[in-house]
Amino acid sequence: MTAQAPISGEIERSGGTWRFAANQPLRLDSGATLAPLEVAYETYGALNAQKTNAVLVCHALTGDQHLASNHPITGKPGWWDLYVGPGRPLDPARHFIICTNVVGGCMGTTGPASTDPRSGAAYGLTFPVITIADMVRAQAMLIEAMGIETLFAAVGGSMGGMQVLQWAADYPEKLFSAVCIAAAARHSAQNIAFHEVGRQAIMADPNWCGGAYLAAGLRPDKGLAVARMAAHITYLSESALQRKFGRELQRDGLSWGFDADFQVESYLRHQGASFVDRFDANSYLYITRALDYFDLAGQHGGVLANAFQRARHVKFCVLSFSSDWLYPTSESRDVVRALNGAGCRASFAEIETDKGHDAFFLDDPQLHQTLHGFLAAQAQARGLA
Amino acid sequence: MTAQAPISGEIERSGGTWRFAANQPLRLDSGATLAPLEVAYETYGALNAQKTNAVLVCHALTGDQHLASNHPITGKPGWWDLYVGPGRPLDPARHFIICTNVVGGCMGTTGPASTDPRSGAAYGLTFPVITIADMVRAQAMLIEAMGIETLFAAVGGSMGGMQVLQWAADYPEKLFSAVCIAAAARHSAQNIAFHEVGRQAIMADPNWCGGAYLAAGLRPDKGLAVARMAAHITYLSESALQRKFGRELQRDGLSWGFDADFQVESYLRHQGASFVDRFDANSYLYITRALDYFDLAGQHGGVLANAFQRARHVKFCVLSFSSDWLYPTSESRDVVRALNGAGCRASFAEIETDKGHDAFFLDDPQLHQTLHGFLAAQAQARGLA
Repeated sequence: MTAQAPISGEIERSGGTWRFAANQPLRLDSGATLAPLEVAYETYGALNAQKTNAVLVCHALTGDQHLASNHPITGKPGWWDLYVGPGRPLDPARHFIICTNVVGGCMGTTGPASTDPRSGAAYGLTFPVITIADMVRAQAMLIEAMGIETLFAAVGGSMGGMQVLQWAADYPEKLFSAVCIAAAARHSAQNIAFHEVGRQAIMADPNWCGGAYLAAGLRPDKGLAVARMAAHITYLSESALQRKFGRELQRDGLSWGFDADFQVESYLRHQGASFVDRFDANSYLYITRALDYFDLAGQHGGVLANAFQRARHVKFCVLSFSSDWLYPTSESRDVVRALNGAGCRASFAEIETDKGHDAFFLDDPQLHQTLHGFLAAQAQARGLA
Repeated sequence: MTAQAPISGEIERSGGTWRFAANQPLRLDSGATLAPLEVAYETYGALNAQKTNAVLVCHALTGDQHLASNHPITGKPGWWDLYVGPGRPLDPARHFIICTNVVGGCMGTTGPASTDPRSGAAYGLTFPVITIADMVRAQAMLIEAMGIETLFAAVGGSMGGMQVLQWAADYPEKLFSAVCIAAAARHSAQNIAFHEVGRQAIMADPNWCGGAYLAAGLRPDKGLAVARMAAHITYLSESALQRKFGRELQRDGLSWGFDADFQVESYLRHQGASFVDRFDANSYLYITRALDYFDLAGQHGGVLANAFQRARHVKFCVLSFSSDWLYPTSESRDVVRALNGAGCRASFAEIETDKGHDAFFLDDPQLHQTLHGFLAAQAQARGLA
């Protein structure tokens, strides 16, 4: 690694969210660089004098920096509001909690809807393909610019959990502890297949315009809605869908047509229709691609344990949900085995629930307790308690 | 039931397939009637003098009458070619095998691409919504017109299995035995959800034209391809996809773009692209709707066993595949429990395979043996052996 100037940048509050404008380009795994780099983020709580209480929370595919603050478009509470607050696992009275919008995202961090300085127009498909490691590299630049040497914890579920694993591989020296929830160390063929369906649905929409829909004043909402609907099925378990909806009808009797007869149809249509209000179609392409490219063992000679060789001092907590068929427990067990193989300390729990992958967003008592217990023990070890 | 004229109709060979033009309209569950009704079908072998050796094979969602003869569009062997032939479970030397294209289909039987006699144009969305029972009723009309009083067996997988169950409920007096493979007695919320994604993908395609694409000289191929891709994932098991494709690349190295980098992407795209050559988008809407509406217990006061009360003389064989997550073994067990509850004799086997739902199309030795054994025993009981 060549010696580099320290990373800094302008940090300001604008449009209801913090923005970090880096003084350096973001080096990407593809070989390209991204400049200028802006990272949108939210924080909760205050950094202590020793700068030892910072927790980075990494969001999932369609998440954003609004961890515990109302979403500016939907007005809904933050996506992990239930886990942030007094007496909750993440407590602003004790932790300085940071949540960044990922690179490639659409909530303020540089992504395909951002302006390409070379053209003066939105990047669209000229945006470089990014990876989970690129997302993490941008987060590390922000952390460095904040003067934080070590995160007390990196925490995330689903794609957020993959970022946590990537942190442990790339910046172990900046981590005290790590919590990886409902994730995997690589995307399976089925994971890739579902994402490809979503991408094809978006690209099949003529309003997508080869990615240049913003310049055309159009939005591929129909394609993006179909992508979301397909993905949403994978976030729930079969039994949760059956319990929640079964074959319940919207009205008395069948319509004998193609209206939403069944409640599950209406629910899915609503998921698709509301998603397009808050998400950019090209961001969906880029972030699903980053997920499909993710293969932590592949980055380390095919041996997952090699990814964690420098992380022996990090305390890991790996959690899975029994009914998650998107990133099933077996994938988390593979991570734990690799951590053990590398000599890392890892707690592991499979949380019993029939709610499927999205259980990590829900008010699960066992998830509360496990997170609380792990972070409290680490706080004591870190001298924060 | 009012006394009706006997069902007959013109039967002729045309365009490489047999066509039955009924002398009566098809009464539909919706209350509508469909006239004229044409049923396209293939046969293999000859009806014996006693007319006791007829086997009706019912096809799945995207299947057709080309059970064991080359498909006229793709040129590929029939969809169950492996199970039809000398020494195979279905043997034209012993059985008179009939396979009809379902009502609502697109291979010759009256469906949404057929001409509506009222308008002189293709039905499109003016085609009435049809059900599994409607499909079976059309088959029963053909069987009656052929002078066959009793089928030696009704056999089918997936949607074909649902037709078999419907036969047992609606025409038990016309059945000697019944084989239901990889099916269910009702569509679950997850089944409906996946179909709704497919329908939304088709209807999102502007070339769909509100269903009137034939009149417009267009085809919603992109939407239909996405629908097929999403469905195809559900036909395979996660482990089969992983074993077959894993994270194998198409070329050396990643494209850092949205080309099909992974073999599983290329495979899925091919499944979508080749499907649109042989299937009609509106047929896909109508047939998935028929599947979603299917609820055999719902038709019988909520008690599945009631559906089989008149079928105590029928010998049933119910088969499932261990890795089928579309119609899992639990659904087949529900059918067997209901059959037993109704006092019917049912053999049941769960076939061990990691190939998922589509295993019933593949050359599975256990499926061969089980089918062969069951049909041979029934042939003996029927005096055919």
